[in-house]
Amino acid sequence: MSQLAQVDLIIKNAKELLTLSPSIKDESGLGIIPGGAIAIKEGKILWVGKTADLPKQFAIDSHGQEIDATGKVVMPGLIDAHTHLVFGGSRENEFEQRIQGFSYLEIAGKGGGILSTVEATRRASFEELRSLGRRRLDRLLSKGVTTIEAKSGYGLSLEAELKILQVMRALQEEHPVDIAPTFLGAHTFPKEFKDERRRYIDLLIKEMIPKVAEERLAEFCDVFCEEKAFNLEESREILEAGKRYGLKPKIHADQLSPGGGAELAAEVGAYSADHLEYVSQRGIERMAEKEVTAVLLPGASFFLSMKKYPPAREMIEKGVAVALSTDLNPGSSMTESLPLMMTMGCLFFKLTPKEAIQAVTVHAARSMGREKEIGSLDVRMKADVVLLDIPNYRYLPYHFGIDHVELVVKKGRVVYRNKYSHQ
Amino acid sequence: MSQLAQVDLIIKNAKELLTLSPSIKDESGLGIIPGGAIAIKEGKILWVGKTADLPKQFAIDSHGQEIDATGKVVMPGLIDAHTHLVFGGSRENEFEQRIQGFSYLEIAGKGGGILSTVEATRRASFEELRSLGRRRLDRLLSKGVTTIEAKSGYGLSLEAELKILQVMRALQEEHPVDIAPTFLGAHTFPKEFKDERRRYIDLLIKEMIPKVAEERLAEFCDVFCEEKAFNLEESREILEAGKRYGLKPKIHADQLSPGGGAELAAEVGAYSADHLEYVSQRGIERMAEKEVTAVLLPGASFFLSMKKYPPAREMIEKGVAVALSTDLNPGSSMTESLPLMMTMGCLFFKLTPKEAIQAVTVHAARSMGREKEIGSLDVRMKADVVLLDIPNYRYLPYHFGIDHVELVVKKGRVVYRNKYSHQ
Repeated sequence: MSQLAQVDLIIKNAKELLTLSPSIKDESGLGIIPGGAIAIKEGKILWVGKTADLPKQFAIDSHGQEIDATGKVVMPGLIDAHTHLVFGGSRENEFEQRIQGFSYLEIAGKGGGILSTVEATRRASFEELRSLGRRRLDRLLSKGVTTIEAKSGYGLSLEAELKILQVMRALQEEHPVDIAPTFLGAHTFPKEFKDERRRYIDLLIKEMIPKVAEERLAEFCDVFCEEKAFNLEESREILEAGKRYGLKPKIHADQLSPGGGAELAAEVGAYSADHLEYVSQRGIERMAEKEVTAVLLPGASFFLSMKKYPPAREMIEKGVAVALSTDLNPGSSMTESLPLMMTMGCLFFKLTPKEAIQAVTVHAARSMGREKEIGSLDVRMKADVVLLDIPNYRYLPYHFGIDHVELVVKKGRVVYRNKYSHQ
Repeated sequence: MSQLAQVDLIIKNAKELLTLSPSIKDESGLGIIPGGAIAIKEGKILWVGKTADLPKQFAIDSHGQEIDATGKVVMPGLIDAHTHLVFGGSRENEFEQRIQGFSYLEIAGKGGGILSTVEATRRASFEELRSLGRRRLDRLLSKGVTTIEAKSGYGLSLEAELKILQVMRALQEEHPVDIAPTFLGAHTFPKEFKDERRRYIDLLIKEMIPKVAEERLAEFCDVFCEEKAFNLEESREILEAGKRYGLKPKIHADQLSPGGGAELAAEVGAYSADHLEYVSQRGIERMAEKEVTAVLLPGASFFLSMKKYPPAREMIEKGVAVALSTDLNPGSSMTESLPLMMTMGCLFFKLTPKEAIQAVTVHAARSMGREKEIGSLDVRMKADVVLLDIPNYRYLPYHFGIDHVELVVKKGRVVYRNKYSHQ
């Protein structure tokens, strides 16, 4: 008799096991194993293959379990590569004003816009922000999300930015969803520096970035690069300062006007350039060359009724990896539903269902430099797995506005079950 | 001591109780009672008012309960006025083909389109259809929906249309969500009558409508009035035949081209005209005059990437009551999320949050002739009530893609609770 190998969790009989592994070549492009199974041990993937080939010597630990996925789809935990997780207040009044035709400037004049969220976030206590963040993480998890990127940027003072990043650290300690924190002090100019741009940039570079780095509160540094926010030179200076302190660059680029943001992303070696509605031809080529991931945000297109969409098909054809994210934030995309972003990515940006799935797994992982750990189901990767009650992968973006998640596994542990039933 | 009055259920302390009652005039237009309470007895609303004014003599029955809605919104159960609840199969392949740019005709050539669902529905057994319908009703309920309209129309033969309507009847017997059944034999021409339009219309008028009416399987009769489907004369003839058998008229009107459908709706006294992308000026005026409710379907605009939207603001300004519905169906709107339709109604059609709420309550009730029973919280109305975990009514369409429903009461009974929590 062969020796037993203890495993913690087995999921088997999946109608489609989407591995997203580059080592499995199939027609779908998603590395699908029909009748697939996965075995998990100590938070990592131990084995992936056909259920019929499951090694006989695998024995489930007494605390472990075996999950039957007959008729269903199993895939890597979803990754939301662009969120503004921690903020106070909400802006439903502004939503109504936009519908009624008020312009961005008029809304800011009525006390709306980013700065109104900055005020609410500064006012909110650490515990209030933590409680709000926890509920948002719960909602993300219920949509199948196991890892997110999360930006600060509603503090815009040393104290308030640190508070936001510390809330993220506290949330990381209590919640199963992994958080990659990003410092976005350069989200906009706070009102106390409205007429002293240089002084705010100095504050960012000389005080905030060093302090954030010293306390190891962020992994990335992001800039809202836009004529009305931080111009190209200012953005470069801030991102280069971040790099000197070990913060990896990311950019909000070319959202509202063509501004060379994508080219700058390539120049500074950014992990991602995000938004990209007005990206130039040259910007696309440079992103492809330097392997900068494009993070596209259809929720913002929807919420802001944008006429112009990012040229996703062109980016894909030129070899840019495209990720899709929620952009979760109170002003331009108030949602935690990454699956809905997949549907919108298909309908607005003409991604195929395959590309939409890559966009929230392998490509999203790459935009965060975590492609060796998450985003695909390969041996030794983190055991972040979602079981979906759908008959095939194309069905996920197709049947929209509905939670298809039945179960979420994070680092080998079942952390969420959809308990829906009527009484 | 005053005599005790037994009640079954009390919901109290609602931050906003949206009564939608015409008897309460307030600035919002939604009949809001701040700090509101509602008392329910024998499936009906017994009392509505401020929590502070709750009559002291109300005593909760031993089987009853008291629900605290502090900080939350309470409103009438949502009404989905246009669904195609019962069908077999799904069309995710077609979804992908549309994204890839194939036209409707090309997709039909590849075996897609309505007729592919007709085939799948004819093939499906009664029990299969019942099980699919049950899951869809469960999803609708989880979104806060307590009443729907449901159309046949994927059978297109006497036998298959009766099967669909009988499935609805069986679902009505087992499920808390109320179903108003509509006969839509005139959805399209089945392939066996492709070249014999007149014979199919005769079948509809002389066999199907009489049989459906005889077995009391439908309340409404609907027609897809469109150049490519049933023309104006054919639609009139079918709806008039329905009326002779007691079926109330409804029309799929002016969706793909201007065809006089809205005018016909007014002429035949339809309860609603639905879609209306290409409605004429005259059509809007006639609908207002004859009090035909407009049922708008933003999910179809989204799913089909429609360039043209129905002129909702103009209809509202001219006095037409506007309802919003999911259009739940496998080809042009695969969703049960009525709250998401509210967000899309706001963003695509420029309804205000107030109008979006009226659109799924009072106006939806009117489109089904049920405004005296459901859609508002008034004494003697059916006790169909939703408790939402949101701070105010504007928040409902604003925070999108997320289930805010905490609890649903149908005819005085708690039939759904959202049990979400991570493990």
